[in-house]
Amino acid sequence: MLELHYGPGTCSFVVHAGLETIRAAIGQDFAAHAVRLHKGEHLSAAHLALNPLGQVPVLVAEGRPLTQVLAIADYLDRRFPQVGLLPTDPWARAQAMSQLAFMNNTAHPTFAHVFKPHLFAEDGAAHAELKRFNTKRFRDHLERIQGWVAQATPFWFGERPSFHDAYALTLLRWGGYAGIDPQGLPALWAHAQRVAASAPVAAAMAREKLELNVYRAAA
Amino acid sequence: MLELHYGPGTCSFVVHAGLETIRAAIGQDFAAHAVRLHKGEHLSAAHLALNPLGQVPVLVAEGRPLTQVLAIADYLDRRFPQVGLLPTDPWARAQAMSQLAFMNNTAHPTFAHVFKPHLFAEDGAAHAELKRFNTKRFRDHLERIQGWVAQATPFWFGERPSFHDAYALTLLRWGGYAGIDPQGLPALWAHAQRVAASAPVAAAMAREKLELNVYRAAA
Repeated sequence: MLELHYGPGTCSFVVHAGLETIRAAIGQDFAAHAVRLHKGEHLSAAHLALNPLGQVPVLVAEGRPLTQVLAIADYLDRRFPQVGLLPTDPWARAQAMSQLAFMNNTAHPTFAHVFKPHLFAEDGAAHAELKRFNTKRFRDHLERIQGWVAQATPFWFGERPSFHDAYALTLLRWGGYAGIDPQGLPALWAHAQRVAASAPVAAAMAREKLELNVYRAAA
Repeated sequence: MLELHYGPGTCSFVVHAGLETIRAAIGQDFAAHAVRLHKGEHLSAAHLALNPLGQVPVLVAEGRPLTQVLAIADYLDRRFPQVGLLPTDPWARAQAMSQLAFMNNTAHPTFAHVFKPHLFAEDGAAHAELKRFNTKRFRDHLERIQGWVAQATPFWFGERPSFHDAYALTLLRWGGYAGIDPQGLPALWAHAQRVAASAPVAAAMAREKLELNVYRAAA
Protein backbone atom coordinates (compact mmCIF):
# COMPACT_ATOMS: atom_id res chain seq x y z
CA MET A 1 0.00 0.00 0.00
CA LEU A 2 1.26 3.45 -0.96
CA GLU A 3 -0.07 6.63 0.59
CA LEU A 4 0.93 10.15 -0.37
CA HIS A 5 0.57 13.08 2.00
CA TYR A 6 0.61 16.16 -0.21
CA GLY A 7 0.12 19.89 0.13
CA PRO A 8 -1.93 21.17 -2.80
CA GLY A 9 0.24 23.26 -5.12
CA THR A 10 3.50 22.51 -3.29
CA CYS A 11 6.49 20.49 -4.47
CA SER A 12 4.69 17.33 -3.39
CA PHE A 13 3.00 17.65 -6.78
CA VAL A 14 6.20 16.16 -8.24
CA VAL A 15 5.56 12.90 -6.40
CA HIS A 16 1.78 13.09 -6.91
CA ALA A 17 2.22 13.28 -10.69
CA GLY A 18 4.75 10.44 -10.60
CA LEU A 19 2.32 8.22 -8.69
CA GLU A 20 -0.41 8.95 -11.25
CA THR A 21 2.03 8.01 -14.03
CA ILE A 22 2.76 4.73 -12.22
CA ARG A 23 -0.98 4.05 -11.84
CA ALA A 24 -1.65 4.81 -15.53
CA ALA A 25 1.24 2.59 -16.64
CA ILE A 26 0.87 -0.50 -14.47
CA GLY A 27 -2.27 -0.07 -12.36
CA GLN A 28 -0.43 0.31 -9.02
CA ASP A 29 -2.86 2.18 -6.78
CA PHE A 30 -2.14 4.80 -4.11
CA ALA A 31 -4.14 6.80 -1.58
CA ALA A 32 -3.79 10.60 -1.58
CA HIS A 33 -4.20 12.61 1.63
CA ALA A 34 -4.30 16.40 1.41
CA VAL A 35 -2.36 18.33 4.07
CA ARG A 36 -3.78 21.85 4.04
CA LEU A 37 -0.80 24.04 4.87
CA HIS A 38 -2.90 27.21 5.12
CA LYS A 39 -4.78 25.52 7.97
CA GLY A 40 -1.55 24.47 9.65
CA GLU A 41 -2.22 20.76 9.15
CA HIS A 42 1.48 20.16 8.42
CA LEU A 43 2.14 21.04 12.06
CA SER A 44 -0.48 18.63 13.44
CA ALA A 45 0.73 15.85 15.73
CA ALA A 46 -0.31 13.30 13.12
CA HIS A 47 1.77 14.92 10.38
CA LEU A 48 4.76 15.62 12.61
CA ALA A 49 4.78 11.93 13.48
CA LEU A 50 5.34 11.23 9.77
CA ASN A 51 7.80 14.10 9.23
CA PRO A 52 9.24 15.97 12.22
CA LEU A 53 10.14 18.85 9.88
CA GLY A 54 6.43 19.36 9.11
CA GLN A 55 7.02 19.23 5.37
CA VAL A 56 5.39 17.56 2.42
CA PRO A 57 5.62 15.25 0.56
CA VAL A 58 5.60 12.16 2.73
CA LEU A 59 5.24 8.80 1.01
CA VAL A 60 4.03 6.07 3.32
CA ALA A 61 4.95 2.63 1.99
CA GLU A 62 3.81 -0.40 3.97
CA GLY A 63 3.25 1.88 6.94
CA ARG A 64 6.70 3.52 6.92
CA PRO A 65 7.21 7.20 6.06
CA LEU A 66 9.75 8.47 3.51
CA THR A 67 10.47 12.17 3.04
CA GLN A 68 12.32 14.31 0.46
CA VAL A 69 11.35 14.53 -3.22
CA LEU A 70 14.68 13.12 -4.45
CA ALA A 71 14.59 10.13 -2.14
CA ILE A 72 10.97 9.34 -3.03
CA ALA A 73 11.59 9.72 -6.77
CA ASP A 74 14.62 7.42 -6.59
CA TYR A 75 12.68 4.89 -4.50
CA LEU A 76 9.61 4.81 -6.75
CA ASP A 77 11.71 4.51 -9.90
CA ARG A 78 13.62 1.54 -8.50
CA ARG A 79 10.51 -0.12 -7.12
CA PHE A 80 8.65 0.19 -10.43
CA PRO A 81 11.42 0.10 -13.06
CA GLN A 82 9.02 -1.02 -15.78
CA VAL A 83 7.40 2.46 -15.75
CA GLY A 84 10.56 4.19 -16.96
CA LEU A 85 10.34 7.22 -14.67
CA LEU A 86 14.12 7.75 -14.87
CA PRO A 87 16.70 6.59 -17.43
CA THR A 88 18.20 3.12 -16.96
CA ASP A 89 21.62 3.92 -18.44
CA PRO A 90 23.77 4.76 -15.39
CA TRP A 91 25.25 7.95 -16.83
CA ALA A 92 21.92 9.24 -18.15
CA ARG A 93 20.39 8.44 -14.78
CA ALA A 94 23.12 10.33 -12.95
CA GLN A 95 22.49 13.39 -15.14
CA ALA A 96 18.78 13.07 -14.40
CA MET A 97 19.48 13.01 -10.66
CA SER A 98 21.70 16.08 -11.07
CA GLN A 99 18.89 17.99 -12.81
CA LEU A 100 16.39 16.93 -10.14
CA ALA A 101 18.83 18.02 -7.41
CA PHE A 102 19.21 21.45 -9.06
CA MET A 103 15.45 21.96 -9.21
CA ASN A 104 15.14 20.81 -5.59
CA ASN A 105 18.11 22.55 -3.91
CA THR A 106 18.45 25.70 -6.02
CA ALA A 107 15.37 26.67 -8.07
CA HIS A 108 12.84 25.59 -5.43
CA PRO A 109 14.43 27.41 -2.43
CA THR A 110 15.02 30.50 -4.54
CA PHE A 111 11.25 30.71 -5.01
CA ALA A 112 10.76 30.12 -1.30
CA HIS A 113 12.64 33.38 -0.66
CA VAL A 114 10.05 35.20 -2.77
CA PHE A 115 6.96 33.39 -1.49
CA LYS A 116 7.90 32.69 2.13
CA PRO A 117 10.65 35.16 3.08
CA HIS A 118 9.72 34.71 6.75
CA LEU A 119 11.44 31.31 6.57
CA PHE A 120 14.77 33.10 6.10
CA ALA A 121 14.46 36.36 8.08
CA GLU A 122 12.16 38.10 10.56
CA ASP A 123 12.74 41.72 9.63
CA GLY A 124 10.16 43.21 7.21
CA ALA A 125 12.72 45.23 5.23
CA ALA A 126 14.77 42.08 4.76
CA HIS A 127 11.65 40.33 3.45
CA ALA A 128 11.21 42.97 0.76
CA GLU A 129 14.86 42.69 -0.26
CA LEU A 130 14.68 38.89 -0.38
CA LYS A 131 11.61 39.03 -2.63
CA ARG A 132 13.19 41.55 -4.99
CA PHE A 133 16.60 39.90 -5.30
CA ASN A 134 15.38 36.33 -5.59
CA THR A 135 12.66 37.00 -8.16
CA LYS A 136 15.41 37.82 -10.65
CA ARG A 137 17.45 34.76 -9.63
CA PHE A 138 14.35 32.60 -9.97
CA ARG A 139 13.76 33.78 -13.51
CA ASP A 140 17.36 32.81 -14.38
CA HIS A 141 16.70 29.32 -12.99
CA LEU A 142 13.54 29.00 -15.10
CA GLU A 143 15.59 29.93 -18.19
CA ARG A 144 18.01 27.15 -17.37
CA ILE A 145 15.18 24.64 -17.02
CA GLN A 146 13.70 25.91 -20.27
CA GLY A 147 16.97 24.91 -21.94
CA TRP A 148 16.50 21.38 -20.64
CA VAL A 149 12.87 20.93 -21.74
CA ALA A 150 13.84 21.91 -25.28
CA GLN A 151 15.10 18.29 -25.51
CA ALA A 152 11.76 16.74 -24.43
CA THR A 153 10.30 14.07 -26.75
CA PRO A 154 7.51 14.82 -25.85
CA PHE A 155 8.32 14.47 -22.13
CA TRP A 156 11.64 14.70 -20.31
CA PHE A 157 12.33 10.98 -20.54
CA GLY A 158 10.17 10.01 -23.50
CA GLU A 159 6.59 8.86 -23.70
CA ARG A 160 5.47 9.24 -20.09
CA PRO A 161 5.51 12.35 -17.91
CA SER A 162 7.87 11.96 -14.98
CA PHE A 163 9.08 13.79 -11.89
CA HIS A 164 11.17 16.26 -13.88
CA ASP A 165 8.23 17.30 -16.04
CA ALA A 166 6.09 17.85 -12.96
CA TYR A 167 8.84 19.83 -11.18
CA ALA A 168 9.37 22.08 -14.21
CA LEU A 169 5.60 22.64 -14.41
CA THR A 170 5.44 23.41 -10.68
CA LEU A 171 8.32 25.88 -10.77
CA LEU A 172 6.82 27.68 -13.79
CA ARG A 173 3.42 27.82 -12.03
CA TRP A 174 5.08 29.30 -8.95
CA GLY A 175 6.72 31.89 -11.18
CA GLY A 176 3.25 33.32 -11.75
CA TYR A 177 3.03 34.13 -8.02
CA ALA A 178 6.41 35.90 -8.35
CA GLY A 179 5.07 38.08 -11.16
CA ILE A 180 6.77 36.09 -13.92
CA ASP A 181 4.47 35.65 -16.95
CA PRO A 182 4.87 32.00 -18.07
CA GLN A 183 4.23 33.05 -21.65
CA GLY A 184 7.51 34.97 -21.46
CA LEU A 185 9.26 31.58 -21.38
CA PRO A 186 7.63 30.10 -24.49
CA ALA A 187 9.36 26.71 -24.67
CA LEU A 188 8.86 26.06 -20.96
CA TRP A 189 5.24 27.21 -21.18
CA ALA A 190 4.59 24.92 -24.17
CA HIS A 191 6.12 22.05 -22.22
CA ALA A 192 4.03 22.79 -19.13
CA GLN A 193 0.85 22.85 -21.19
CA ARG A 194 1.76 19.52 -22.81
CA VAL A 195 2.54 17.98 -19.43
CA ALA A 196 -0.67 19.36 -17.86
CA ALA A 197 -2.71 17.89 -20.71
CA SER A 198 -1.36 14.36 -20.18
CA ALA A 199 -3.86 12.11 -18.41
CA PRO A 200 -1.74 11.31 -15.30
CA VAL A 201 -0.74 14.90 -14.62
CA ALA A 202 -4.23 16.16 -15.37
CA ALA A 203 -5.55 13.74 -12.73
CA ALA A 204 -3.09 15.05 -10.12
CA MET A 205 -3.90 18.67 -11.00
CA ALA A 206 -7.64 18.01 -10.72
CA ARG A 207 -7.23 16.42 -7.28
CA GLU A 208 -5.15 19.40 -6.11
CA LYS A 209 -7.54 21.85 -7.88
CA LEU A 210 -4.62 23.61 -9.57
CA GLU A 211 -4.75 26.25 -12.28
CA LEU A 212 -1.77 26.00 -14.62
CA ASN A 213 -1.39 29.75 -15.10
CA VAL A 214 -1.66 31.79 -11.89
CA TYR A 215 0.05 34.87 -13.29
CA ARG A 216 -1.97 38.07 -13.04
CA ALA A 217 -0.71 41.08 -14.98
CA ALA A 218 -0.22 44.14 -12.76
CA ALA A 219 -3.27 46.40 -13.04
CA MET B 1 39.48 7.61 -15.17
CA LEU B 2 37.83 9.66 -12.41
CA GLU B 3 38.69 13.30 -11.75
CA LEU B 4 37.31 15.43 -8.95
CA HIS B 5 37.21 19.20 -9.14
CA TYR B 6 36.87 20.38 -5.56
CA GLY B 7 36.90 23.63 -3.63
CA PRO B 8 38.89 23.19 -0.41
CA GLY B 9 36.56 23.25 2.59
CA THR B 10 33.36 23.31 0.53
CA CYS B 11 30.67 20.64 0.19
CA SER B 12 32.82 18.95 -2.47
CA PHE B 13 34.59 17.43 0.54
CA VAL B 14 31.66 15.00 0.73
CA VAL B 15 32.62 13.54 -2.65
CA HIS B 16 36.35 13.85 -1.96
CA ALA B 17 36.05 11.75 1.19
CA GLY B 18 33.89 9.22 -0.67
CA LEU B 19 36.50 8.85 -3.39
CA GLU B 20 39.22 8.28 -0.79
CA THR B 21 37.03 5.60 0.81
CA ILE B 22 36.65 3.92 -2.59
CA ARG B 23 40.41 4.07 -3.15
CA ALA B 24 41.12 2.62 0.30
CA ALA B 25 38.57 -0.18 -0.20
CA ILE B 26 39.25 -1.33 -3.77
CA GLY B 27 42.23 0.64 -5.10
CA GLN B 28 40.22 2.64 -7.65
CA ASP B 29 42.31 5.78 -8.27
CA PHE B 30 41.17 9.34 -8.94
CA ALA B 31 42.79 12.67 -9.73
CA ALA B 32 41.97 15.67 -7.53
CA HIS B 33 42.00 19.20 -8.94
CA ALA B 34 41.65 22.13 -6.54
CA VAL B 35 39.38 24.99 -7.63
CA ARG B 36 40.35 27.97 -5.49
CA LEU B 37 37.10 29.84 -5.01
CA HIS B 38 38.76 32.80 -3.25
CA LYS B 39 40.74 33.35 -6.48
CA GLY B 40 37.60 33.09 -8.60
CA GLU B 41 38.73 29.91 -10.33
CA HIS B 42 35.17 28.54 -10.22
CA LEU B 43 34.26 31.28 -12.69
CA SER B 44 37.10 30.48 -15.12
CA ALA B 45 36.16 29.44 -18.65
CA ALA B 46 37.61 25.99 -17.99
CA HIS B 47 35.46 25.43 -14.91
CA LEU B 48 32.30 26.93 -16.41
CA ALA B 49 32.71 24.47 -19.30
CA LEU B 50 32.39 21.68 -16.70
CA ASN B 51 29.63 23.37 -14.69
CA PRO B 52 27.84 26.43 -16.10
CA LEU B 53 26.70 27.27 -12.55
CA GLY B 54 30.34 27.68 -11.46
CA GLN B 55 29.91 25.32 -8.54
CA VAL B 56 31.85 22.45 -7.06
CA PRO B 57 31.99 19.47 -6.92
CA VAL B 58 32.31 18.28 -10.48
CA LEU B 59 33.15 14.63 -11.03
CA VAL B 60 34.59 13.94 -14.47
CA ALA B 61 34.14 10.28 -15.43
CA GLU B 62 35.58 9.16 -18.76
CA GLY B 63 35.74 12.80 -19.81
CA ARG B 64 32.12 13.67 -18.97
CA PRO B 65 31.18 16.04 -16.14
CA LEU B 66 28.62 15.27 -13.44
CA THR B 67 27.46 17.87 -10.92
CA GLN B 68 25.49 17.84 -7.66
CA VAL B 69 26.54 15.99 -4.51
CA LEU B 70 23.48 13.73 -4.47
CA ALA B 71 23.84 12.69 -8.09
CA ILE B 72 27.57 11.99 -7.68
CA ALA B 73 27.04 10.03 -4.45
CA ASP B 74 24.31 7.92 -6.07
CA TYR B 75 26.47 7.35 -9.17
CA LEU B 76 29.61 6.34 -7.25
CA ASP B 77 27.69 3.99 -4.97
CA ARG B 78 26.10 2.21 -7.91
CA ARG B 79 29.35 2.06 -9.88
CA PHE B 80 31.28 0.61 -6.93
CA PRO B 81 28.64 -1.35 -4.97
CA GLN B 82 31.29 -3.53 -3.33
CA VAL B 83 32.44 -0.52 -1.25
CA GLY B 84 29.14 -0.23 0.60
CA LEU B 85 28.91 3.57 0.53
CA LEU B 86 25.11 3.39 0.85
CA PRO B 87 22.80 0.66 2.16
CA THR B 88 21.73 -2.02 -0.32
CA ASP B 89 18.30 -2.69 1.21
CA PRO B 90 15.92 -0.51 -0.86
CA TRP B 91 14.13 1.03 2.12
CA ALA B 92 17.32 1.72 4.08
CA ARG B 93 18.81 3.22 0.95
CA ALA B 94 15.78 5.47 0.46
CA GLN B 95 16.11 6.72 4.03
CA ALA B 96 19.82 7.36 3.40
CA MET B 97 18.97 9.42 0.30
CA SER B 98 16.40 11.36 2.35
CA GLN B 99 19.03 12.22 4.98
CA LEU B 100 21.54 13.25 2.31
CA ALA B 101 18.87 15.41 0.64
CA PHE B 102 18.15 17.15 3.96
CA MET B 103 21.81 17.95 4.53
CA ASN B 104 22.10 19.18 0.95
CA ASN B 105 18.89 21.18 0.46
CA THR B 106 18.24 22.42 4.02
CA ALA B 107 21.26 22.39 6.36
CA HIS B 108 23.79 23.38 3.69
CA PRO B 109 21.86 26.38 2.26
CA THR B 110 20.99 27.56 5.77
CA PHE B 111 24.71 27.92 6.42
CA ALA B 112 25.12 29.69 3.08
CA HIS B 113 22.82 32.43 4.40
CA VAL B 114 25.26 32.98 7.27
CA PHE B 115 28.51 32.67 5.30
CA LYS B 116 27.51 34.11 1.91
CA PRO B 117 24.44 36.29 2.49
CA HIS B 118 25.24 38.20 -0.71
CA LEU B 119 23.98 35.17 -2.61
CA PHE B 120 20.48 35.91 -1.33
CA ALA B 121 20.30 39.72 -1.01
CA GLU B 122 22.26 42.85 -1.93
CA ASP B 123 21.28 45.13 0.94
CA GLY B 124 23.73 45.22 3.86
CA ALA B 125 21.05 45.37 6.56
CA ALA B 126 19.42 42.31 5.01
CA HIS B 127 22.78 40.51 5.18
CA ALA B 128 23.01 41.13 8.91
CA GLU B 129 19.46 39.86 9.42
CA LEU B 130 20.11 36.75 7.31
CA LYS B 131 23.23 35.94 9.35
CA ARG B 132 21.45 36.38 12.66
CA PHE B 133 18.27 34.46 11.81
CA ASN B 134 19.95 31.57 10.00
CA THR B 135 22.66 30.95 12.60
CA LYS B 136 19.91 29.81 14.94
CA ARG B 137 18.25 27.70 12.25
CA PHE B 138 21.61 26.15 11.41
CA ARG B 139 22.18 25.11 14.98
CA ASP B 140 18.78 23.37 14.97
CA HIS B 141 19.80 21.46 11.84
CA LEU B 142 23.06 20.37 13.50
CA GLU B 143 21.04 19.06 16.45
CA ARG B 144 18.94 17.01 14.07
CA ILE B 145 22.06 15.55 12.44
CA GLN B 146 23.49 14.86 15.87
CA GLY B 147 20.44 12.68 16.51
CA TRP B 148 21.29 10.66 13.41
CA VAL B 149 24.98 10.10 14.19
CA ALA B 150 24.05 8.71 17.59
CA GLN B 151 23.26 5.51 15.62
CA ALA B 152 26.72 5.30 13.96
CA THR B 153 28.61 1.98 14.33
CA PRO B 154 31.22 3.46 14.15
CA PHE B 155 30.33 5.25 10.91
CA TRP B 156 26.94 6.10 9.43
CA PHE B 157 26.72 2.89 7.41
CA GLY B 158 29.09 0.67 9.32
CA GLU B 159 32.80 0.06 8.97
CA ARG B 160 33.72 2.63 6.31
CA PRO B 161 33.20 6.39 6.36
CA SER B 162 30.78 7.48 3.66
CA PHE B 163 29.24 10.61 2.17
CA HIS B 164 26.94 11.16 5.15
CA ASP B 165 29.81 11.10 7.64
CA ALA B 166 31.73 13.61 5.53
CA TYR B 167 28.70 15.88 5.14
CA ALA B 168 28.02 15.84 8.88
CA LEU B 169 31.69 16.66 9.54
CA THR B 170 31.61 19.47 6.97
CA LEU B 171 28.45 21.03 8.38
CA LEU B 172 29.83 20.91 11.93
CA ARG B 173 33.13 22.48 10.72
CA TRP B 174 31.16 25.26 9.03
CA GLY B 175 29.31 25.82 12.27
CA GLY B 176 32.59 27.07 13.71
CA TYR B 177 32.55 29.93 11.17
CA ALA B 178 29.01 30.72 12.34
CA GLY B 179 30.18 30.99 15.96
CA ILE B 180 28.86 27.58 16.97
CA ASP B 181 31.30 25.74 19.24
CA PRO B 182 31.42 22.12 18.00
CA GLN B 183 32.04 20.96 21.57
CA GLY B 184 28.54 22.20 22.39
CA LEU B 185 27.24 19.30 20.28
CA PRO B 186 29.15 16.49 21.99
CA ALA B 187 27.88 13.45 20.08
CA LEU B 188 28.31 15.16 16.73
CA TRP B 189 31.75 16.41 17.72
CA ALA B 190 32.81 12.91 18.82
CA HIS B 191 31.57 11.55 15.51
CA ALA B 192 33.43 14.22 13.50
CA GLN B 193 36.66 13.44 15.36
CA ARG B 194 36.24 9.72 14.68
CA VAL B 195 35.51 10.38 10.99
CA ALA B 196 38.45 12.78 10.65
CA ALA B 197 40.78 10.20 12.19
CA SER B 198 39.86 7.51 9.65
CA ALA B 199 42.54 7.06 6.99
CA PRO B 200 40.42 7.97 3.93
CA VAL B 201 38.94 11.11 5.44
CA ALA B 202 42.30 12.13 6.92
CA ALA B 203 43.79 11.90 3.41
CA ALA B 204 41.09 14.16 1.96
CA MET B 205 41.47 16.65 4.83
CA ALA B 206 45.25 16.75 4.37
CA ARG B 207 44.91 17.42 0.63
CA GLU B 208 42.43 20.25 1.36
CA LYS B 209 44.56 21.47 4.30
CA LEU B 210 41.51 21.53 6.59
CA GLU B 211 41.42 22.07 10.32
CA LEU B 212 38.60 20.16 11.96
CA ASN B 213 37.77 22.82 14.53
CA VAL B 214 37.66 26.36 13.12
CA TYR B 215 35.63 27.80 16.01
CA ARG B 216 37.22 30.76 17.75
CA ALA B 217 35.67 31.88 21.03
CA ALA B 218 34.65 35.54 20.98
CA ALA B 219 37.41 37.66 22.59
